[in-house]
Amino acid sequence: MTVITLTTDFGLRDSYVAIMKGVILSICPSVRIIDISHEVRKFDVLSGAFILASAFSYFPKGTIHVGVVDPGVGTERKAIAIKTKNYFFIGPDNGLLTLASKIDGIVEIRLIENEELFLQNVSSTFHGRDIFAPVAAHLACTGNFSSIGSSLSIDEIVIPPFSEPIVEKEGLLGRVIHIDDFGNIITNIHVSHLKNIDKLYGRQISIEIKDKKLNIPFVKSFGRVPIGHLLCFIDSFNFLEISINQGNASKFLNVKVGDTVKVFLGE
Amino acid sequence: MTVITLTTDFGLRDSYVAIMKGVILSICPSVRIIDISHEVRKFDVLSGAFILASAFSYFPKGTIHVGVVDPGVGTERKAIAIKTKNYFFIGPDNGLLTLASKIDGIVEIRLIENEELFLQNVSSTFHGRDIFAPVAAHLACTGNFSSIGSSLSIDEIVIPPFSEPIVEKEGLLGRVIHIDDFGNIITNIHVSHLKNIDKLYGRQISIEIKDKKLNIPFVKSFGRVPIGHLLCFIDSFNFLEISINQGNASKFLNVKVGDTVKVFLGE
Amino acid sequence: MTVITLTTDFGLRDSYVAIMKGVILSICPSVRIIDISHEVRKFDVLSGAFILASAFSYFPKGTIHVGVVDPGVGTERKAIAIKTKNYFFIGPDNGLLTLASKIDGIVEIRLIENEELFLQNVSSTFHGRDIFAPVAAHLACTGNFSSIGSSLSIDEIVIPPFSEPIVEKEGLLGRVIHIDDFGNIITNIHVSHLKNIDKLYGRQISIEIKDKKLNIPFVKSFGRVPIGHLLCFIDSFNFLEISINQGNASKFLNVKVGDTVKVFLGE
Repeated sequence: MTVITLTTDFGLRDSYVAIMKGVILSICPSVRIIDISHEVRKFDVLSGAFILASAFSYFPKGTIHVGVVDPGVGTERKAIAIKTKNYFFIGPDNGLLTLASKIDGIVEIRLIENEELFLQNVSSTFHGRDIFAPVAAHLACTGNFSSIGSSLSIDEIVIPPFSEPIVEKEGLLGRVIHIDDFGNIITNIHVSHLKNIDKLYGRQISIEIKDKKLNIPFVKSFGRVPIGHLLCFIDSFNFLEISINQGNASKFLNVKVGDTVKVFLGE
Repeated sequence: MTVITLTTDFGLRDSYVAIMKGVILSICPSVRIIDISHEVRKFDVLSGAFILASAFSYFPKGTIHVGVVDPGVGTERKAIAIKTKNYFFIGPDNGLLTLASKIDGIVEIRLIENEELFLQNVSSTFHGRDIFAPVAAHLACTGNFSSIGSSLSIDEIVIPPFSEPIVEKEGLLGRVIHIDDFGNIITNIHVSHLKNIDKLYGRQISIEIKDKKLNIPFVKSFGRVPIGHLLCFIDSFNFLEISINQGNASKFLNVKVGDTVKVFLGE
Repeated sequence: MTVITLTTDFGLRDSYVAIMKGVILSICPSVRIIDISHEVRKFDVLSGAFILASAFSYFPKGTIHVGVVDPGVGTERKAIAIKTKNYFFIGPDNGLLTLASKIDGIVEIRLIENEELFLQNVSSTFHGRDIFAPVAAHLACTGNFSSIGSSLSIDEIVIPPFSEPIVEKEGLLGRVIHIDDFGNIITNIHVSHLKNIDKLYGRQISIEIKDKKLNIPFVKSFGRVPIGHLLCFIDSFNFLEISINQGNASKFLNVKVGDTVKVFLGE
């Protein structure tokens, strides 16, 4: 029983997501469909890429991950299918799929061009329904990856900018890559960028964010500081995260995705 | 493996939707349950009818579509089951089901009255749980449509007003039937109302909406105009739609469902 | 085919819920996963307890209900699994599970401590992924409850305050335990607290709420009063509920969870 996941910016009010599911079940009735998120910020390919990258690896091997955050639908942007070490990814060639694919290890890329796999009468505005859903369903039921279209090399697809933090003399200059629904601030500073991390626990860390320099306790979990207090910690995706215990850090600090975060690690 | 879809205005915060699913799975464990939408505007039967009509036909033949937008629950409004050419529809008799049913072709209508199919102790306020979910689950597992209740003729059920645009000398006078989550404005002007449509592509079309007369490029997809610009196009449901590329047209134009839209097609 | 339900305050924007589903399907591919709600007010254990208690009993016997509203994650709060007469409950020991469990009848409680059932490298902030999802999935596929950990007595777990209304000379002093997505006000006054209920139908009842004393018709369903009018009734969970027909009573009366509600039943 193959799993297909869906990650889109369609929201849940309209029928767009349900239509994709109906198309999938009409072609491959035995497949399991799981929503990753349909509340990706509209047109925000990088945010969709982050959400997909945070979740894909927890699914069974062979899962087909379909992503549709697709402001370029109906233009010349390509549609692609990527086979990685353990998974498949299907969606527009705009960077949405490449962050997750590279983490798992890209094995093969195909241009989606075999019109026999599409719905009849492909629209110019809803490739989720007309192309991505049916191609994923065919792949789920036949396992035939090469029939999707001709091979592409990795140089022929879009790789999103997803900057690593800069190592400066005083510390690390990173940025905010995601604000979650709790208002937690997730940075691109990975646990691997922080040396001697065990020494940091229990200390105050100097962090400059939005021109404010703050001393924030570095702890293992929310409950280690009083309710309403700031904390920073290594989150469950191994990134440095800034939060307020039972509060909303992004509102309190007025921080948005893309803002810089400077972490001072010196004596 | 039969599919049951759910379309309601219950929202996702409360447990109402989950309770319906629990009831369905308790009666017919093998059924697949797919959400069409639970974010229909509260008590807005016409909006629910539109969302259901936009999605139903993409599901496998034999799918049972349950709709619950039901401001008259507990009054004398009837509960009905409709068999169409390819599907079944179950819900209140207030017009919610009839738009989709008529598109597919009504074959047979039954009054839902067989109390053996209901939960025990039917409440006055939650027929989704007590009547519609169990009746759908019994139908999914037994296929017995006629046991639901006695036959009704089409004259005995509610047909919602869903006006066609008026053909005037200068053009078409339609109205807004849906605003989607992107802010796209969907009109009741169908592709079949527009003659020589291929000649229109690439031209500016005069559209009067909310007392403003605008010239809007008629194109095939969003990406054909710059980001932030208005466009109009035939959408994936074959209706005329007014949008902003990567923007929110309904906010920008201050347009709501029910507003008139006049399209000038003359020389 | 066992059912696992999920009740969390994670919201649907982020990938947290999907990650739990991926973990479950990786361990036990045949399980059915149903969302009860992911829009529990953040950190509001009592509200989560109410939502879970309102829904759990409609699911097939043997269903495993997982709840994660867990402000104390990473502190010393215990993780527990409860076997009741018909169901299993898995989550943090903070009261979230005990309301539903006590309604169904607690049979056995286990401390979740068998690390062989966890994901490797348990984080301090996401026990939904690392502990609760995998333990539920193992239970679904093996049925082995006792392997989860050592027994606890009911005195060793947290019982949430969920006050009964106080019977006063003039009537009942209760409080608001839930506001649903329609703005309906659900009180902790149960049908069993109201005597001679059949005599009440059609009468006006005096209710004091937020220092306002109102006379509200006591009826069987919304449609019994005009649109926009207040009503009170016994809701589908058998609690006294105050609503406005096709309106939002909590906004109109400016009422919040926890506010007192006094119902006068005297001559």
